[in-house]
Amino acid sequence: MAYSETFMHAALAEAKKAIQRGEAPIGAVVVYKNEIIGYGANTRETENAISGHAEINALQMAAKKLDSWHLDGCDLYVTLEPCPMCAGAIIQSHIRNLYFGARDEKAGACGSATDLFLPGMFNHDTVVFGGVCQDECKTLLQSFFKELRKLKD
Amino acid sequence: MAYSETFMHAALAEAKKAIQRGEAPIGAVVVYKNEIIGYGANTRETENAISGHAEINALQMAAKKLDSWHLDGCDLYVTLEPCPMCAGAIIQSHIRNLYFGARDEKAGACGSATDLFLPGMFNHDTVVFGGVCQDECKTLLQSFFKELRKLKD
Repeated sequence: MAYSETFMHAALAEAKKAIQRGEAPIGAVVVYKNEIIGYGANTRETENAISGHAEINALQMAAKKLDSWHLDGCDLYVTLEPCPMCAGAIIQSHIRNLYFGARDEKAGACGSATDLFLPGMFNHDTVVFGGVCQDECKTLLQSFFKELRKLKD
Repeated sequence: MAYSETFMHAALAEAKKAIQRGEAPIGAVVVYKNEIIGYGANTRETENAISGHAEINALQMAAKKLDSWHLDGCDLYVTLEPCPMCAGAIIQSHIRNLYFGARDEKAGACGSATDLFLPGMFNHDTVVFGGVCQDECKTLLQSFFKELRKLKD
């Protein structure tokens, strides 16, 4: 399964923007025909929105662009393993391939806390590939939470 | 686990409103201290939004009302067993009790297609009770899809 580090770097750039708003640095992009058509970062705190995760924000932007919430033929790159909410949205959007960076041992839905991507589980199978630019994605998150703890002490 | 048919009837009323917009009749309400603070119905087609399910719309309204996307002490009533996306949003919102009507054998995340509510699975446990006003919820959905098939023939 071929992936592009360039697209994960674009997702990482989105993640970095989230820090400026006091949000956890998680970013995502939707790619269609080798072009980014959706960008997203965490907006949960700033918009007080449960659905304000990077993946859903990127999917919404892509849906607007394609004028359809069905995103057949699109791939999603995200810096952290998606949670169940985002995993559900990714599958229902018919995302073709999902590439994620770091693992989320506590809440990840690609095999960590649960696995929602088992073939035949739902009416669409998204193919999952984890560990893309893993170190960069992990370091960015770890640095953020380390700083946060310092501020709280 | 005490539940109120009145609140499920309020969710059913929301579901009926969705039909007028050509959306599948699924409705939800969020209840806090015995009062409805969030209403939601399907808006996925009309708003072209992947997150436009009844549950997430109701959670968003409640979050606005309480000025927090954490909805501790709130219960959610929904006419259909939540999908994985909504189940994830419900758990992450810290919903106390989830009451649903009809089962969704194909995509339900409360034991049908998968079960995301197993105790200890995530950092919050939502207690689930299914089958509230089940027949009314099921009939409403079945009639809608029967009509839809007629129109397509």
